[in-house]
Amino acid sequence: MSLDIDKANATVLDRMTSARPMLTTVAPARDVVPGLREGLLLHAGPPIEWPRMSGPLQGAVIGALLLEGLADDEASARAMAESGEVDFEPCHHHGAVGPMAGVISPSMAVYVVENPVHGNRSYSNLNEGYGKVLRYGAYSPEVLEKLRWMNGEMASLLAAALAATDGGLDLRALLAEALHMGDEGQDRNKAGWLLYLKLLAPQIARVAGDWATAERVLAFLGDNALSVLNPVMAACKAMADAGHGIEGSTIVTTMARNGTDFGIRVSGLGDRWFTAPAQTPDGLYFTGFTSEDANPDIGDSTITETAGIGAFAMAAAPAIVSFVSGSPKDAMHATLEMYEITAGEHPQLNIPALGFRGTPVGIDVRKVIELGVTPRVNTGIAHREAGIGQVGAGLVRPPLGIFEQALLAFAELHGLSEPETH
Amino acid sequence: MSLDIDKANATVLDRMTSARPMLTTVAPARDVVPGLREGLLLHAGPPIEWPRMSGPLQGAVIGALLLEGLADDEASARAMAESGEVDFEPCHHHGAVGPMAGVISPSMAVYVVENPVHGNRSYSNLNEGYGKVLRYGAYSPEVLEKLRWMNGEMASLLAAALAATDGGLDLRALLAEALHMGDEGQDRNKAGWLLYLKLLAPQIARVAGDWATAERVLAFLGDNALSVLNPVMAACKAMADAGHGIEGSTIVTTMARNGTDFGIRVSGLGDRWFTAPAQTPDGLYFTGFTSEDANPDIGDSTITETAGIGAFAMAAAPAIVSFVSGSPKDAMHATLEMYEITAGEHPQLNIPALGFRGTPVGIDVRKVIELGVTPRVNTGIAHREAGIGQVGAGLVRPPLGIFEQALLAFAELHGLSEPETH
Repeated sequence: MSLDIDKANATVLDRMTSARPMLTTVAPARDVVPGLREGLLLHAGPPIEWPRMSGPLQGAVIGALLLEGLADDEASARAMAESGEVDFEPCHHHGAVGPMAGVISPSMAVYVVENPVHGNRSYSNLNEGYGKVLRYGAYSPEVLEKLRWMNGEMASLLAAALAATDGGLDLRALLAEALHMGDEGQDRNKAGWLLYLKLLAPQIARVAGDWATAERVLAFLGDNALSVLNPVMAACKAMADAGHGIEGSTIVTTMARNGTDFGIRVSGLGDRWFTAPAQTPDGLYFTGFTSEDANPDIGDSTITETAGIGAFAMAAAPAIVSFVSGSPKDAMHATLEMYEITAGEHPQLNIPALGFRGTPVGIDVRKVIELGVTPRVNTGIAHREAGIGQVGAGLVRPPLGIFEQALLAFAELHGLSEPETH
Repeated sequence: MSLDIDKANATVLDRMTSARPMLTTVAPARDVVPGLREGLLLHAGPPIEWPRMSGPLQGAVIGALLLEGLADDEASARAMAESGEVDFEPCHHHGAVGPMAGVISPSMAVYVVENPVHGNRSYSNLNEGYGKVLRYGAYSPEVLEKLRWMNGEMASLLAAALAATDGGLDLRALLAEALHMGDEGQDRNKAGWLLYLKLLAPQIARVAGDWATAERVLAFLGDNALSVLNPVMAACKAMADAGHGIEGSTIVTTMARNGTDFGIRVSGLGDRWFTAPAQTPDGLYFTGFTSEDANPDIGDSTITETAGIGAFAMAAAPAIVSFVSGSPKDAMHATLEMYEITAGEHPQLNIPALGFRGTPVGIDVRKVIELGVTPRVNTGIAHREAGIGQVGAGLVRPPLGIFEQALLAFAELHGLSEPETH
């Protein structure tokens, strides 16, 4: 049988864009995330072991060990991580994603997203908001106390509220609307957040046993525009996974960073990662910080670009440039450039300012190499030391080399003497 | 003293754009709207008497007489209106505005907007939502029952919620944010509405005596994206009024339609109206309706364009074209064209897609005549018969003749032989 890459890629594109991610519940990770055994911590990005982890990821690991009660203090947590008593695996190996450090431990509550069209599920942790948070490597008692409250009272109420909806929240519909309201779904989530609150608030109020509980949860979600980021990332994961594993396809189905390496996986190349050192984002820094403070690129939020939003939908979000740098024209050009390296346009997610053209979706490794154009990524910038937090936001691209590696592996797998481009 | 029109216009522009409209309370119109005596009904647009009123305005008058208990049925309400027992005056003569028929009677609750910078106040009625509503001339028992509930339970709770805020809601800040989220503030209010809910919901929940009341009010506001239109219109009225009455200015401070006539007023020409027959909007019709069903242009919502939003901010709202017709490029061009006939750019309200350029604001009668370009207006389209409701949405322009009248009056007032243009 001859290799028909375009046909395989069309199948991937169809599966990714026809997936319908529904947010159905919130539950402890140990109860729902496949393979999340005790003593295992999930993290953002491609596989990595303790010694090579950057500051924020090490900090988040320490915090998770304290949260799980596996260590009593920082020193014992460090010793435990160094000793090899703890296992580390990517979130992506378990259908999950997490922003920044992306650490998920068994007791943490996670969002559950189901894609009824293809029968797959995805997961993401709950967003902690701004300031000192585990995802930037903070692990002080307040950080852990907040996480315990989130995993307890908030998670229970969210689960009950979602159970009161009619089959869950349609996150693709939410995203489609948010793109018409100036979001790109990754660094700008203001509209998605308000839509999320609008959908959940009446259910939360209805199922809460008492008003004080409802108020605490609504205030927490209502004070943090990133509340919607994690469900959106899980939605993108569900869409990308629906397109994974199609033989002969050169479409990227994972892009992720662990703060040290940037890794991708390709639909037709199974679970193999192609990695190289992560870059440091270019962008705008909060007062008091400079690029000297920046950690290399970190987090699974690149799942948004993988699924056709984030930087790929920048043309929908001209106001974002005051946050990530550049001009509204640059935002427009970012999207236009991404059409050059993608397999198609999203039939469900579109951009009014481009005449309602679908977002560019389905990064084709062949086109990336042919044009030498790597995907654009919008991101938050973490301080390189654990626990200091976000120091800015900006733009970054994965290293070109990982796409070269992937295309060579593809050529080898299919016995092609030269990587096929078109 | 020589006439310095540009200087006068700069003063008007500065006053209009530095006004800071704060939504401070909701109260019965009779208690707060200056000069709203019993037996007087306010209506949208320039002055008009009963025989010349269009279907929807006559219907709204009948409804208001029934609501006030001044008539027992349609026939007696009609007889009363015909007999001259009722007085009719424009909302605009009382610092007020209302969408579509815009009828405000003494018992109706109104939003109160204060502009602390210049010390003026403005008012607008509460939005009834979709379907059979007084503003489209419906007056069935359900319509009146809903209004009684709005004027009672809802108005009381809104007043209490606003009292619990710190000095009211800053509507200009809300508008600035909504323009970054794809609204133009007149026909598209999705972001403004969600922001409005976000600001008010916690206060409503906090001050409501019981959860059932809070839920009814939140559900009503939450089911109707137009909830925010009326406060926004009052905000625009407060801004426009701050610029009214500056001697020597050719800036338009009122544009309004009563369903029969389109009228404008000019800052330097006192309270005199310049009117001509209103046009029928061009646009998209809801299923089952055509332009045959359309009433001529009606409502005070043109106060938005007067203050620099609405059609003037279309470039911020490319998604709106699926509602009002045209392409996203047309939306961009609408805003660009309006820069040609306005005195300046809004320092507070801007459009990301135009590189954060301020919206065009301050329609200069001289430029309208010099270029022959009339202001663009976005609007809902009313059925010409009372009570049927909205049949579509679209675009319209005022008749050029009213700007000619105004410029001639200006020339006459200042003893100019030729209207000055530049």
